[in-house]
Amino acid sequence: MEPDEAMAYAGSMPTAAILIIGNEILSGKVTDENSPYFCRELRALGVDVERILTISDDVQSIASEVKAMSDAYDFVFTAGGIGPTHDDLTIEGIAAGFGVAVEHSESIEERIRRATGKEPSDTLLRMARIPTGAQLLDSGDLWFPLVVVHNVYIFPGVPELLRKKFESVRDRFRGVPFVLKKVFVRKRESDIAPLLNELLQEFPELLLGSYPRIGQEAFHVMLTLESRDAGYVQDALESLLNRLPEDAVHRVE
Amino acid sequence: MEPDEAMAYAGSMPTAAILIIGNEILSGKVTDENSPYFCRELRALGVDVERILTISDDVQSIASEVKAMSDAYDFVFTAGGIGPTHDDLTIEGIAAGFGVAVEHSESIEERIRRATGKEPSDTLLRMARIPTGAQLLDSGDLWFPLVVVHNVYIFPGVPELLRKKFESVRDRFRGVPFVLKKVFVRKRESDIAPLLNELLQEFPELLLGSYPRIGQEAFHVMLTLESRDAGYVQDALESLLNRLPEDAVHRVE
Repeated sequence: MEPDEAMAYAGSMPTAAILIIGNEILSGKVTDENSPYFCRELRALGVDVERILTISDDVQSIASEVKAMSDAYDFVFTAGGIGPTHDDLTIEGIAAGFGVAVEHSESIEERIRRATGKEPSDTLLRMARIPTGAQLLDSGDLWFPLVVVHNVYIFPGVPELLRKKFESVRDRFRGVPFVLKKVFVRKRESDIAPLLNELLQEFPELLLGSYPRIGQEAFHVMLTLESRDAGYVQDALESLLNRLPEDAVHRVE
Repeated sequence: MEPDEAMAYAGSMPTAAILIIGNEILSGKVTDENSPYFCRELRALGVDVERILTISDDVQSIASEVKAMSDAYDFVFTAGGIGPTHDDLTIEGIAAGFGVAVEHSESIEERIRRATGKEPSDTLLRMARIPTGAQLLDSGDLWFPLVVVHNVYIFPGVPELLRKKFESVRDRFRGVPFVLKKVFVRKRESDIAPLLNELLQEFPELLLGSYPRIGQEAFHVMLTLESRDAGYVQDALESLLNRLPEDAVHRVE
């Protein structure tokens, strides 16, 4: 693919936003593992994650943020707030955001009955509430389906469950993947900054990242070179390696 | 403190928002360690973190988000985008957000000169750019000061440096701390949900969290009880322990 073709693609790449819902993240009691997972997986698939937002379990906030994200991005992924307890308000919030009611899903009730082998309690039945018009997607070997409203995919907050569910639907989100090269450099960032600016003048479409690392003996900066065009990244990599002093490169990945 | 007094405080507790700036987070190359750190530290100080937003290195996004957060919260903490390279656009973004220019700080240039013992390169001088009117706060044994614009505290993205800087200014952010109790429960969340609803009816101001844990042998749910009123939390804890079956409690922290 020529650079021009890569650019022609650029406008049509799928974009995504991630909405993390949970007081436990904001109050520092639980560290969010879900947004890093989504970011890595979506990047590998070729989807641009453009925004991650963490908000509390509050119906009005969920409603307004989900709706805004749904309008602005191709895909929205929410995590958290869909369990059976008092602080699980994501379904209400998303329904409010799209101006629809919350309804009881006979299909989910039936799945609960099959999974547990008995009549569901009122508490468990809370998990059968969905926004009216939602789609249910089977998710691997989990009894609980993935609930989808328009372009909003509603995931549980428990990381193990979220990952299983995502794996069962990941093929829906394929774009053109990025090619990534990493160069670990023995110089300080301020010493190589001019050279990076030169590189960007030669390769204006390159996504170039520069990340200082402290406490690493072997290198001081990790550089990342990315594009959806593998040849473009390779050319930029060679140009970078030519610009760097010979002893400056610790390794290339 | 009586519950009524705790409520009287509620309106005046300091609030905060965190803005993480960096393509490297959105693209999954680097996991954000800074927002979990801020959340834990601010919670311990008694500050309510109400929102965490991660955006890319883009001047317009930084400008609009920082300004909106500055208007809505008592404190704003930004992390990332203040190094010497091409993708470090936080200073420009924040200046644009407040409608001020970017100016050269003689004071920072002098600090660079003292720290390095030589004339700073053009690249290093990029780090002496600040929004006009910014305050500079000395930050422990680091040569680089903390730059503050109105209520926005501008932190570096490198976690070790961010932590050192935060420690040097943390006393500015003291509110009334939360008291937290954790109860690890051997029951499933759906089995104890009705009991949690009863507890909330008795203690309507309690911040009650319920977090299922998978892969834990010893317990299935971590409950968290919080309030700024220690007596209120203690009363709620006792009420909860009375409601739970005797063999259900794994431990209390």
